[in-house]
Amino acid sequence: MDKQRVIIYGCGIMGRRAAEALADKESFVIVGAVDIDPELVGKDLGILFSSPRETGILIENDADTLFARTDADAVVLTTSSHLKTVMPQIKQCIDAGLNIVSTCEELSYPWKRSPELAEEVDNWAKETGVTVVGTGINPGYLMDSLPLTLTAPCLKVDSIRVTRMMNSALRRIPFQKKVGTSMTPDEFQQKIQDGIITGHVGLLESIYMIADGLGWELDQATELPPEAVIAEADTETGFGTIKPGDVIGLKSVAHAEKAGQTVITLEFIANAGVKEEYDEIFVKGIPNIHEKILGGVHGDTGTVAVTINTIPKAIEAVPGLKLMSEIPSPAATL
Amino acid sequence: MDKQRVIIYGCGIMGRRAAEALADKESFVIVGAVDIDPELVGKDLGILFSSPRETGILIENDADTLFARTDADAVVLTTSSHLKTVMPQIKQCIDAGLNIVSTCEELSYPWKRSPELAEEVDNWAKETGVTVVGTGINPGYLMDSLPLTLTAPCLKVDSIRVTRMMNSALRRIPFQKKVGTSMTPDEFQQKIQDGIITGHVGLLESIYMIADGLGWELDQATELPPEAVIAEADTETGFGTIKPGDVIGLKSVAHAEKAGQTVITLEFIANAGVKEEYDEIFVKGIPNIHEKILGGVHGDTGTVAVTINTIPKAIEAVPGLKLMSEIPSPAATL
Repeated sequence: MDKQRVIIYGCGIMGRRAAEALADKESFVIVGAVDIDPELVGKDLGILFSSPRETGILIENDADTLFARTDADAVVLTTSSHLKTVMPQIKQCIDAGLNIVSTCEELSYPWKRSPELAEEVDNWAKETGVTVVGTGINPGYLMDSLPLTLTAPCLKVDSIRVTRMMNSALRRIPFQKKVGTSMTPDEFQQKIQDGIITGHVGLLESIYMIADGLGWELDQATELPPEAVIAEADTETGFGTIKPGDVIGLKSVAHAEKAGQTVITLEFIANAGVKEEYDEIFVKGIPNIHEKILGGVHGDTGTVAVTINTIPKAIEAVPGLKLMSEIPSPAATL
Repeated sequence: MDKQRVIIYGCGIMGRRAAEALADKESFVIVGAVDIDPELVGKDLGILFSSPRETGILIENDADTLFARTDADAVVLTTSSHLKTVMPQIKQCIDAGLNIVSTCEELSYPWKRSPELAEEVDNWAKETGVTVVGTGINPGYLMDSLPLTLTAPCLKVDSIRVTRMMNSALRRIPFQKKVGTSMTPDEFQQKIQDGIITGHVGLLESIYMIADGLGWELDQATELPPEAVIAEADTETGFGTIKPGDVIGLKSVAHAEKAGQTVITLEFIANAGVKEEYDEIFVKGIPNIHEKILGGVHGDTGTVAVTINTIPKAIEAVPGLKLMSEIPSPAATL
C-alpha cells in the first residue's frame, strides 16, 4: 500500500490527536509537523501523544522551509476556527502544492460569511491543482453532510431538524468550561455578552451547507444566543458537584426560514444533566426519515476520525475549495 | 434553473415510478421514453403514472433513433437486474454520450462478479466522457454506501452489521409474492431449489462495496439461501389471512470473513409478522456507531428517490463506471 504523506500544521489538542491517530494507521505516514509555540518547536511530535512515543518528526516553526524540502500529499490544518486567521497558512500549503483538510469551522462553508475569501481559496486551489476541505464532526458531518445524505431516499423535503444531545460531564474539562459548567446564571449571561461563551461554532455553516445541498434559497438563518441549562438537582461534573440553580451546560439553537416557514432547525445541547446521548435527524418530507445514532458520536474522536478519513478523498477530488457535500463521503481508513 | 434532460429507458414498475417522480420535479424534464413492450409503444408515458396525465412523451421502441434526435443529459435505465442483459443498452447510451443512472442491481458493484464487463463499461464511459452508476435503495444506499458513510467518525472498524427489517404485508403484492407469502414450507423450498425465490438481489454487491470502501481484503463472501419465516398465529397479508405453519415471508443473510473473522453481516428480513420496521447499522470499532432509521425506508419510494437524486451527481462526476461510494452522496432534488 502506498502510504499517504501528511504534514501536521498546528499541534494543539486537535492536531496532536490527529497526529496520534495517523501514526497508528498503516495507510498514512506523517512527514512533518509545524507549530509556532516556542514550547513545542524542536520537540518530537510523539511526546504530545496520549501514549507518548518517539516519532522522529520534530516540530518546526517555519512551514515554508518544511514544505520546500518535504514530499507530502496533504496537510492537516488545525490552527484556528476562523478563516481569516488561517488564510496565510492556506496560501502557504496551496503554494506548496499540498491538499488541505482543515478543522477550521468557518472553512466548512465559507461562501456565505466570507465569499471573497472563499473565492480566493477556490481560485488558488484550482490554479495549483489541489483540494481544500473544511471538516470535522460538526460542522462537516453530523449536522450537515450526514443529514443531506439522509435525504437521498426522499422525493421531497419540507424541513430538517437535527439534534445533538451530549452529556458534557463525559467530555474533557476545557469543553465543560466552554459550555459554562459551574457558573452562576449571571456569570453565564455576562460571558455571553462578553463573547467568551459563544455556543457551538459552526451551526450557521451547517445550515448553509444543508440549504446549498438541497438547492434551497433561504429567507434568513439565525443563531440564537446560547441558553444556560440550570441544575435542578445536585449534578456531578468535571468541576465537582453543581448545586441546583447553577449552570451545568448549555443549549444552542439555530434555525432557517424559507418562504416564511422554518425549514432547518439545529439544536446543540451539551450539559451534565443529559441522561441519554444521541444524534438525531428528522427529515419531514416524502417519505419522512427519522434517524438516530444511539449513544451519539464523541466530538473529539469524531472530529479526528472524520478529518483524517477525509484525507484520501481530498487527495482524489477535483481541485478547488470543496464542501463535504461535494466530495465522496469519507469512510474509515486503514 | 437549467432543467436536467432525462430519458426513461424501461417503462416497467421502477421506470414509470421514476418517470412520475421526475415529472413532478422542477429540476428535471423528461425528453424521451423507451420500452420494447408492444403494448406500451406509441402510448403517452403519462398513462402509466399512478396519477395518469398527458406528458406529450410517447414511448418508443428504438432507443438509437430517439437518442439520435434528442438532446439529453442522462438516462434512467431500469430494464433488468442483470448486467449481462443491460450491456447492449448501456453501450447504446454511452455511444450517444448519455450519463446513466441504473437500478440494475449487479451494476452497483460489478467488479467482483463480472470484472470483464465492468472494465468494458468503465472504458467505454471514459472514452465518451460519461458517468455510469448503478444504484437504488438497496443495493446502492441502505446496506452499502450509507454504512460506509457511518464509518467516517471511526478511527478503526472491526465489523459491520446491517439489518433491514420490513413488514412485507405493507408492500405491493408482487413483492409479497416474491418473499413467499402464503406458500407452504415445502412449496417455498421447491421455489428456492427452482431458483424462483432468490431472496434479495444485491446483498453480495453491497458486501463487496463495503469491503472496497474500507480497503478490506475479504477471505470470502457468502449469501445463504433465503429462510422461510413461518406464521405462528393468523397473520394478515395481501394474500388474505395466513394460517399458522404457512409462510409469511423470508429472511436473507449474507456475510463476509476477513482473517478468519466475520466482519460484514447483512440481514434482509421481509415478512408479514414484523411489528417494528427499521433499518439498522451497527459498526463495531473505535468508537462503535449504532444507527437506526426508525420506521425504515420504503423500498420502492426509496429506490425511485435515490435513483433520480443521483442523476445530478452522475452528470457532474468524472467519467467512468462509478460506485455510489465513489461519487458525492445524492441529496433530495427540487
